[in-house]
Amino acid sequence: MAAMIRNEVFSCFVFYGVLLVVKMYILAIITGQLRLRKKAFANPEDAMRHGGLQYHREDPYVERSRRAHCNDLENILPFLFLGAVYSLTGPSLAVARLHFLVFFVCRVLHSVAYLLALQAPTRSLAYTFAQIPCVSMALQILMAVASYA
Amino acid sequence: MAAMIRNEVFSCFVFYGVLLVVKMYILAIITGQLRLRKKAFANPEDAMRHGGLQYHREDPYVERSRRAHCNDLENILPFLFLGAVYSLTGPSLAVARLHFLVFFVCRVLHSVAYLLALQAPTRSLAYTFAQIPCVSMALQILMAVASYA
Amino acid sequence: MAAMIRNEVFSCFVFYGVLLVVKMYILAIITGQLRLRKKAFANPEDAMRHGGLQYHREDPYVERSRRAHCNDLENILPFLFLGAVYSLTGPSLAVARLHFLVFFVCRVLHSVAYLLALQAPTRSLAYTFAQIPCVSMALQILMAVASYA
Repeated sequence: MAAMIRNEVFSCFVFYGVLLVVKMYILAIITGQLRLRKKAFANPEDAMRHGGLQYHREDPYVERSRRAHCNDLENILPFLFLGAVYSLTGPSLAVARLHFLVFFVCRVLHSVAYLLALQAPTRSLAYTFAQIPCVSMALQILMAVASYA
Repeated sequence: MAAMIRNEVFSCFVFYGVLLVVKMYILAIITGQLRLRKKAFANPEDAMRHGGLQYHREDPYVERSRRAHCNDLENILPFLFLGAVYSLTGPSLAVARLHFLVFFVCRVLHSVAYLLALQAPTRSLAYTFAQIPCVSMALQILMAVASYA
Repeated sequence: MAAMIRNEVFSCFVFYGVLLVVKMYILAIITGQLRLRKKAFANPEDAMRHGGLQYHREDPYVERSRRAHCNDLENILPFLFLGAVYSLTGPSLAVARLHFLVFFVCRVLHSVAYLLALQAPTRSLAYTFAQIPCVSMALQILMAVASYA
């Protein structure tokens, strides 16, 4: 069993996968801090605790942070599946690490571009370049298992 | 390690799992194309690049595509977990493939019904039938591991 | 292959992971039932089937249930990744079970606090305490695989 965690490619994937999960946790904390600072709460019970029902409202910057988080759910969570299975198909460590690293760097840049509202198309380019290793892994996995469909 | 990917049931699961991830990626592309065609952008910086701040707005069809994507997150991502673990419990290939195939077909139908706004309850039926193999896998897994709780 | 499912720590993780997926499925059912009872549908085709387009509208309690579900996606899905990988790093069963059990209990409490709109900060405390085993697992995994980065 522990063989899996001693596999170099799988461990490399796990390293970047866990860092991306931590990145998502940080986005959640940022959203929470923005809600407190902007006094914009999604729930009346939270607004009541922080000054009154008038703070049960939306704020554009809180919504921006939530959109960044939601985009992570749509992209990082599927990566956690693709990366794990791709690691099991026996790729070379150098090629696999390149896949994981490109995705990791682009997704960090995506979050930065989102939170700082960097000029378009910075964020879209980060999203698109992050998809390249994902599509590459998806195709390689499909070729490896196609005979079992 | 590569033993996993040579397991027939696991490979069959991986095949349909990856196709469903690709289906989710296609939904994301459709949402992006709809934003461009309908000129309805979630972020002011995107609207600025495509004609001005008046296009920082919502569009009913873009929102429909986003709801289809969000429903996928709620259902396909848990399937990726259940299917992987279920494959490890030693089911027969024929029974396992039936689980994966029913889920796959119903989720594709769900997306089509959502995007084309097919008459109710088409979409709800696709969702419900897709849940049957998921609940079946969940129960079989729980029976396999209950003694370890 | 079946060795994985016979591993005690992994099986313990799977038990709580599957229960949490079932919990998410129950939230989806609750949202659906609330839509029917409150007559508040996200799609015009659903409203048409249940009385007319005037029921294509939002309801505060339906939105509350959806926020609870969305928060689960942000937290339970990453747990399914962290817990699986953490199980492969060889922790003791007692320590691992404590991680999984704390997360499980806190996330159930989170859903209850959300649906019943319990006084703040009940829900936030449940969220925060559930994050403790997640951060602990993330750190332990990173230490186990850091040399492969």
